[in-house]
Amino acid sequence: MIHELCPDDREGWQKLYQGYQAFYGFHDRPQEFYDKAFRRLMSEDARDFQGLVAEEDGQIVGLVHFVFHPNLWRDEGVCYLQDLFTAPAARGNGVGRALINAVYAAADAAGVPNVYWLTAEDNYAGRMLYDRVAAKSPFIRYNRKL
Amino acid sequence: MIHELCPDDREGWQKLYQGYQAFYGFHDRPQEFYDKAFRRLMSEDARDFQGLVAEEDGQIVGLVHFVFHPNLWRDEGVCYLQDLFTAPAARGNGVGRALINAVYAAADAAGVPNVYWLTAEDNYAGRMLYDRVAAKSPFIRYNRKL
Amino acid sequence: MIHELCPDDREGWQKLYQGYQAFYGFHDRPQEFYDKAFRRLMSEDARDFQGLVAEEDGQIVGLVHFVFHPNLWRDEGVCYLQDLFTAPAARGNGVGRALINAVYAAADAAGVPNVYWLTAEDNYAGRMLYDRVAAKSPFIRYNRKL
Amino acid sequence: MIHELCPDDREGWQKLYQGYQAFYGFHDRPQEFYDKAFRRLMSEDARDFQGLVAEEDGQIVGLVHFVFHPNLWRDEGVCYLQDLFTAPAARGNGVGRALINAVYAAADAAGVPNVYWLTAEDNYAGRMLYDRVAAKSPFIRYNRKL
Repeated sequence: MIHELCPDDREGWQKLYQGYQAFYGFHDRPQEFYDKAFRRLMSEDARDFQGLVAEEDGQIVGLVHFVFHPNLWRDEGVCYLQDLFTAPAARGNGVGRALINAVYAAADAAGVPNVYWLTAEDNYAGRMLYDRVAAKSPFIRYNRKL
Repeated sequence: MIHELCPDDREGWQKLYQGYQAFYGFHDRPQEFYDKAFRRLMSEDARDFQGLVAEEDGQIVGLVHFVFHPNLWRDEGVCYLQDLFTAPAARGNGVGRALINAVYAAADAAGVPNVYWLTAEDNYAGRMLYDRVAAKSPFIRYNRKL
Repeated sequence: MIHELCPDDREGWQKLYQGYQAFYGFHDRPQEFYDKAFRRLMSEDARDFQGLVAEEDGQIVGLVHFVFHPNLWRDEGVCYLQDLFTAPAARGNGVGRALINAVYAAADAAGVPNVYWLTAEDNYAGRMLYDRVAAKSPFIRYNRKL
Repeated sequence: MIHELCPDDREGWQKLYQGYQAFYGFHDRPQEFYDKAFRRLMSEDARDFQGLVAEEDGQIVGLVHFVFHPNLWRDEGVCYLQDLFTAPAARGNGVGRALINAVYAAADAAGVPNVYWLTAEDNYAGRMLYDRVAAKSPFIRYNRKL
């Protein structure tokens, strides 16, 4: 059900990633945004993003994107799960949980077991899942104002 | 007052970084932890951490560590400010603010203007400063349970 | 569908209120707890709690308890909605929303339009509703340690 | 140093309460607002608000207002501490802590030991104190939109 993102997933992946971007309010990303993201996910650069997708009946119904990056407190670095999305019609079937577990497995295989992600405080549906598979930290994010 | 961390700062830097680690409850980091961190901060690897320190009267009174890492939404990536600390005796003099501004300048010079950091929700003294130089996001962090 | 709690609701009300107390971890309230609460809800004291229930097919499927109390900033006081609960089997049908709206109407009738309640930060199912019918404030609660 | 608010405190109390109201963004409360509040604080109604003030060198430098109100879970009710303020010039001397402790003592004397208050999540200076004398709960406040 979960497999590494591959060239054949191009169309189904974009449709889903557009849904995810819309969830965060980005309804009009140019095509170039998706082209670049897919190209990076397909690259062999171990320092850039990797993608996994969930497939059901030949349809891409879930995606997850993650990257390994340095952390000064840990030699091996950490794994940042940036994007996670399940098609609305496929929710409640464990797709999100399976994708997170697949990232955990990939992180273990890479020798970088520490996986983290950020989510909006009011992403209630997401947090119902996250509270079961991970631990909420007391850390909040500040962004430079640009 | 702010300069790039350099070999001569080794002793003063460690004393300060120990204070920072203690703030987060890590009172007994082995010497190896500090040796490795300093070595990485001194390396020329543009993908690893960089350090800046604040000096007053020949003393290191503040430090900041940051790294550039990939972000799938932005070609140029983002700048993660992991550690920031001011010696207790030097607080209230704008050291923290100057260090953050120096990271902003370094990030601009690197073409990676988006700088972010995470802080404990109850780091009140820190947040008094952060609210002035940055914007609190609604994002919270989840960690894999290991 | 919504009506004021009345003596005939005694049995159905307790069953539901027990479910609510269990949600907050209180599984073993003595019978006396429910007896007293019901007696207070039935009293004519305008300064004590009032109750409303939602009925479907002759079953009590929702309850809400509220009280008016003084507020130094407002002559007319405020309305505190302490307890709100919908039977698990009846969720998703608008029972909670109808109960909150009924409290709003009762508060308006009493000339005390300001209604508020407290909820656990991670009561996701509740907050999905509350975000639609009310506004999250930035206020958090501190309790004396006893 | 702490005493019950009395008629002689009228002028000093208002000056301080104006500072508190301004802290929450209410810079232009009409005189009537302060007249009513003081009248209520002076009344003998045990169900309405009571006030305590801190005095230093003949000056009112702190105030606290609290009220007892019903709670369906507790026969004896609870004590709501609505307003707490220390004059900026008198901060750091334990005035706030002494006022909170005086409310605790008054609540104990009234047989209503459970004292609570609400504060803005980003009231950092206040929370530094509150974390020492009370426990942050996970409860957040929702308000009806009017």
